[in-house]
Amino acid sequence: MTKKSLADYIRSIPDWPKPGILFKDITPLLANSEAMSSAIDAIADKFKAGGVDCVAGVEARGFIFGAVLAQKLGVGFVPIRKAGKLPYKTLSVTYDLEYGSDTVEIHVDAFEKGAKVLMIDDLLATGGTMAAACELVKKAGGEIAGIEFLIELKFLNGRDKLNSYGNVSAIIEY
Amino acid sequence: MTKKSLADYIRSIPDWPKPGILFKDITPLLANSEAMSSAIDAIADKFKAGGVDCVAGVEARGFIFGAVLAQKLGVGFVPIRKAGKLPYKTLSVTYDLEYGSDTVEIHVDAFEKGAKVLMIDDLLATGGTMAAACELVKKAGGEIAGIEFLIELKFLNGRDKLNSYGNVSAIIEY
Repeated sequence: MTKKSLADYIRSIPDWPKPGILFKDITPLLANSEAMSSAIDAIADKFKAGGVDCVAGVEARGFIFGAVLAQKLGVGFVPIRKAGKLPYKTLSVTYDLEYGSDTVEIHVDAFEKGAKVLMIDDLLATGGTMAAACELVKKAGGEIAGIEFLIELKFLNGRDKLNSYGNVSAIIEY
Repeated sequence: MTKKSLADYIRSIPDWPKPGILFKDITPLLANSEAMSSAIDAIADKFKAGGVDCVAGVEARGFIFGAVLAQKLGVGFVPIRKAGKLPYKTLSVTYDLEYGSDTVEIHVDAFEKGAKVLMIDDLLATGGTMAAACELVKKAGGEIAGIEFLIELKFLNGRDKLNSYGNVSAIIEY
């Protein structure tokens, strides 16, 4: 499946979650097993030769792509969650939002020190959440093997926040 | 991998999220690709002959197991989310918690009418969330193909809330 045809499975929802935002809805892609498989293969193929010890995904949509990608690569999956959701000892990073702030957490024993961690999320917008997730992985002693997205909203320049952590790629760009 | 050895990948966390609760932490299972694959195979094997049009999982941990199971079965994945998270037109079901209530939602076009929907979540406790999720799938015109859990806390009798919707199974019982 080409990148163009994968984009056919992304639905644009006007004015959600607030007026002026054209939201990219991934549920049609999730609903199609072949499209989902093609999207994950497009990422997995780049890392099949090795260099990845685990895949980390951010709650909640990142769990969907991260878990499937980890299985395709035959490595473990590490959930990065919002504050107060992980039951064991955690490390946390707080980051600024347009209004206020948010916190992401990881278990202290999520991976071995020096592990090569492949980061994935569905959408790169401003990059704030992913930058915090990368910071968290470094804090836990990991190295960033790559930063992968299904969709990138290029006009928001999210890569500027991420380039210092590792190579950034997206399958579908707007 | 036997059920017994899969249970070795579940970590018990005392007094979380509140005193007196022994929380079952699934992150060691997620961190091990083989254990995760065995757990999902144990479910997928029962449905490989057919009878499933899509897999539905409840936010957020249900996304992890649901997405991988859907890929193994070669069917689509349907996310069921907390209120206000899905961008398109939704149906919703509100259910009682110990204190207060919660709401789950599904897209109105998540699947075709009459679709056979396999339900999955990581943990069966009181069954309230899964009962609401099943109600939601029925409201959207689907049929319940089965209700699967990784873990069941049998002493909470969650099955009592679910037996009317379909067959309930769990891989690991406590």
